[in-house]
Parts: sequence; C-alpha cells; structure tokens
Amino acid sequence: MSAAGPMSNAGPMRGGGKVLALCGGVGGAKLALGLASILPPEDLLIVTNTGDDFTHLGLRICPDIDTVTYTLSGLVNPKTGWGREGETWQFKEALSLLGGEDWFSLGDKDLAIHVERSRRLAEGESLSEITAHNAAILGIAPTIVPMSDDSVPTIVETPDGDMDFQHYFVRDRCEPVVTGIRFAGAADASPSPVFAAALEDDNISAIIICPSNPFLSVDPILSLPGVGAGLRAHKAPVVAVSPIVGGIAIKGPTAKMMAELGMDVSALGVAQHYGDLLDGFIIDETDRASASEVAATGVAIDIAQTIMKTKGDRTDLAQVALNFCEKLAS
Amino acid sequence: MSAAGPMSNAGPMRGGGKVLALCGGVGGAKLALGLASILPPEDLLIVTNTGDDFTHLGLRICPDIDTVTYTLSGLVNPKTGWGREGETWQFKEALSLLGGEDWFSLGDKDLAIHVERSRRLAEGESLSEITAHNAAILGIAPTIVPMSDDSVPTIVETPDGDMDFQHYFVRDRCEPVVTGIRFAGAADASPSPVFAAALEDDNISAIIICPSNPFLSVDPILSLPGVGAGLRAHKAPVVAVSPIVGGIAIKGPTAKMMAELGMDVSALGVAQHYGDLLDGFIIDETDRASASEVAATGVAIDIAQTIMKTKGDRTDLAQVALNFCEKLAS
Repeated sequence: MSAAGPMSNAGPMRGGGKVLALCGGVGGAKLALGLASILPPEDLLIVTNTGDDFTHLGLRICPDIDTVTYTLSGLVNPKTGWGREGETWQFKEALSLLGGEDWFSLGDKDLAIHVERSRRLAEGESLSEITAHNAAILGIAPTIVPMSDDSVPTIVETPDGDMDFQHYFVRDRCEPVVTGIRFAGAADASPSPVFAAALEDDNISAIIICPSNPFLSVDPILSLPGVGAGLRAHKAPVVAVSPIVGGIAIKGPTAKMMAELGMDVSALGVAQHYGDLLDGFIIDETDRASASEVAATGVAIDIAQTIMKTKGDRTDLAQVALNFCEKLAS
Repeated sequence: MSAAGPMSNAGPMRGGGKVLALCGGVGGAKLALGLASILPPEDLLIVTNTGDDFTHLGLRICPDIDTVTYTLSGLVNPKTGWGREGETWQFKEALSLLGGEDWFSLGDKDLAIHVERSRRLAEGESLSEITAHNAAILGIAPTIVPMSDDSVPTIVETPDGDMDFQHYFVRDRCEPVVTGIRFAGAADASPSPVFAAALEDDNISAIIICPSNPFLSVDPILSLPGVGAGLRAHKAPVVAVSPIVGGIAIKGPTAKMMAELGMDVSALGVAQHYGDLLDGFIIDETDRASASEVAATGVAIDIAQTIMKTKGDRTDLAQVALNFCEKLAS
C-alpha cells in the first residue's frame, strides 16, 4: 500500500472487531493503556514479550508482563513507567548486607509478584494462567498473555561473548557493543495458546505493534514458530508505531543498538527492519520530512504525535493506530 | 547430684573450655547473647533448633536460626525478640493484593535472608554453610550451627489430625489441642557436622540448654540419632534453664502444651521431662519454694532471676549458668 497523508485522530471510527497488540515494556504498555481506554475489554488482546524474562535469586522475573500489568492496573510508578508506585527498597538493602547479588533492583512491593509467580510455576501453573490470574485480581479487563509459556531467553552477542539479556540491559547498562541478538530455544517454543488462536482468529481486525524496541521486544515475539507467517497471512492490517523519533529512541538502547548493528538510526531503519510484515507504519511528526522516503519501502504511512507523556497522549495515539488500521482494512 | 543452694552470679569464675548451648528462638537467643557477651567467641558454639523450619511461598524459612542470627548481630527487633528492627510490610501487603498466602508475615528486610538461603540451598550449599556465611557477614563471632543439615520437620498431633508446625504455631495461633509431637525423618537425619563433633569434643566443659520450649525447641535437637546419648555420655555437665516460671511460660505455648500433654505445668514438670539428661537445672526465684521438690528428681538446682528483660539480665543469667556448670564439673 502506498503512502497516505496524516489521518485525523478525532473520535472513534472503528467498525468493530478485536485488536491484537504486540508489546514490550514501557512504551508498549503506554500504548496498550491507550487502547484499553478506548476499546471494550473483550476486544483487546495484549501479547507481551517474554524474551527479557530471567530467573534471579531463584525468582522468575518477567519484566514486560509486569510493566503491562502494573500499567493497566494503575499500580505502575508513573515517573519510571515500570515498577510500582510508592515502592520501597528494604529488601534490596538487606540483601546487600548479606552479600547477595543486588545489581537487579527488586522493590519490596514488586517482589510479591515474582515470589507468587515462582511459587505458582513450581506448582505447575503456566505463565499464561499466572498472568491471567494477576490481571484478574488486579481488576484488568482486557486480556494479557505472554508470547509463549516456554522460556525463550534473549541472548545478546557482543565482542566479548554472549550475555544474558538482563546482564546486558541492567547490570552492564547496555554498555557492551551488540553484534547480534538471538532468542534461545525459539525454534522449539510455541506461541501461548491464546496468542496462537489469535493468529487464526478472523474476528481480529487490527494488529498493532507498539512502539517497543524492535530487536529486544518485538523480534522475540516474531521469532516464535508460525508467528511471522501468521501475521503476514492474517486478514487484519499490521501497523507498527516507530520507537525512533528524530533519530533517537524515546527510551532504552534501541538507537545505540541500531547503530551497532549497522542500521540507519531512523524511522526508515525501523521500517526496513520490519520489512513486508507491516501494512502501515506510524511515524512521529518530528519525522514528517522522511515520510516519502519511508513510504518508498512500500508501507503505508501515518504521521502522529507519538511521544506519550500524558494519559491523553496514549489515548490519542491509540485512536490514531485504530483509525489507521480501519482505513487500511477498508 | 543433690540440690545446691543458689549460687553467686558475681563475676566470672570459669576455668576455661568451650560452651555448647542448645537453643530455640527468642528465649534461647537471649541467653545465647548473654553467653556471647561473656565468652571468647571461639569458646561458644550455639546449636539451633530447625524443627520449625518450613518452605513457604517457595522460600526456605528457618525461624530459630534467624532469631539467633538477628539477636547476636544486633539486627533483631527488640520489642518482639524476633524479626528485624525497623521492619516494613510492603511485600506482605502486595502479596495479599495478589491473593497470595499471607498468614505468615514476612517483612521486607527479613525476606532477604529467606531468598538468599533458598537460592544458596538450591545451588547445593548446606544449611550449616549458609548459616555460617550469614553469621560471618553480619559480624557474629561465636559459631552458630543448625542442629542438622537435614530436614526434620516438627509435626503437631491434634484431635483433628497432624499439622505442620507453622500452621499450628502461626496460622492457628497455637489454638489446637496438642495430643502429641513428632519429628519427621529424625531417625534418618544426622546432627550437623559441627554439632556432631561437639558431642565428642572433650574441650567442651559446659552444655547449656537455653530456656526454650522443651517440646518444640529442644526435643527436636534431642530427637537426632546419637544426640541424647552423646549429651549423657559427655564429660561436661548439662544444665537447663527452666522456661516455666511461676506456672506460666515466659513466651509461647509451652504451658498450654504441658497441660494438654498431661504434664505438671511447673519447673518440676520440665525437670521431669528432661529426666536424667540434666546434671543441673536453673529455676526462677519465683519458684524457690519448689526447689526441694525439683531436686528430689535427682538434679542439682540453682535459683536465679531467669526473666531476661534487659541486656544485663541476659549476661547475669549466662554467668549463673556458667558458674553452675563450673561448680558441677568440679
């Protein structure tokens, strides 16, 4: 589909159908919240990256699921976009005192979700079941599912060897140069049952890839068997929001990684990375001048204010994305 | 040995040698602290009950080891005698919000020791090694060891069936009637290596049974193969401090359990329970009138102020116990 001009984001114009959102952490959760504020809850399915998940201090930690869960339940720390509001750090301090590994900060409140998840996993519950339990008990009406109930850890390749994702991301603050990324065990993993069903669900009329890190948040989802093909074959349009605005990432190491991987650090670079997966691509107003260039890759373009500072920004961007999907489907 | 009058507790009169203290939680830890304030650290070995240990929320919890560790490191909550001073409860509240099992209160600070222990156990460290690590890093100089590195859970028998100890003790607040107590797996367990060596160590010149619950804190230690015989055969005198004063227990369900088990709720009842294990028995001044009656069981008696409210009380009682052992050994 060829380039389109910017679309109106005034008011709902949806013709109905369900929406599938693929997301990572903070940026993805913000758009998911915007979608949740517009859509009937039964019409929103949020599939969350689990490539960042890891076991630390014996606890199973799922950063992106928790960021989405905290964001949609209103428990999130609004300043950081992750973790819990009013968090305290007594556990972390006590752990340091005992000589424990304290580079990954676990807040006192946040600990509860990790301890309970670890307990439930040990008792045989699936990550999908646990995520659904937490969402329900926290009053979240839309459906949140992990991309997979299997472990598919993201491995960051660097000149000094392979690194576990959280060692790269948190312990080493994204400082190592990234030469490659892979998703261990992806070939043998399955999409979670609800996600797998969504890939074949004709009632889904829009697929939105949230403005998350393409390499660390979205590619893990796409690495699962059948997902890339399922999205391409789906009748619903696939629309992504660019996480790169004016050549920089809103948050996190996306821009640094793109440069290290030899890619163009721009919305164009992101569009090229997703390639023919996308029917539509939403770029920021800042990048308006590059719209034609991006459209030349063969994707339909919409232009919007994509930086989500306020709750209103989230709703507005969600509406833009829904409207764009609606237009592309018609 | 026949009854002796009350002994002076003025000043050290030890002839040297090491001291082995057997203890449970709060009361035991207080006397252990008193002993630690008098003895050179290399001369004090504290063996701690682990019958109360249990796995909760996937975490291995060792209440008596931690009470002793917190008490000797000065981290303990001085108001309760257990847990940490300045504790907060954000984790517990967050756990409740998620529908987790919150009847056993885990404080934010306290959690660190359980998480680290669980992690270390999963990596193959023994409970003895972990306990030694925690003591060392918290600056505790005397040796603290668990009674065993094996799991020997205390089972409380009630008219409604068997109960896990912490379900009886914490969840049901000691309300069920106790018809019996047993220590699961004791016959197949071993005393911890340091404890086993102490049973055969002629350099130990005093064995002190702290004023802990005889059934719940001391009997689990005595249930281990070789411990009762080892203590009886040891050249050092075995002296206990009565946990019953004036017919009531200073803390916990000792008195209630003695009544339910058909025993005399008195220092006499405790002396009868320990029987020929003891060479000496220290009763409270409150119970002075019963000294002859208790002595008639064949144990040497000392009378002292045994209620430890202040740090001075702990040191004084420790000195009484050391002096008594010294006298009995001479």
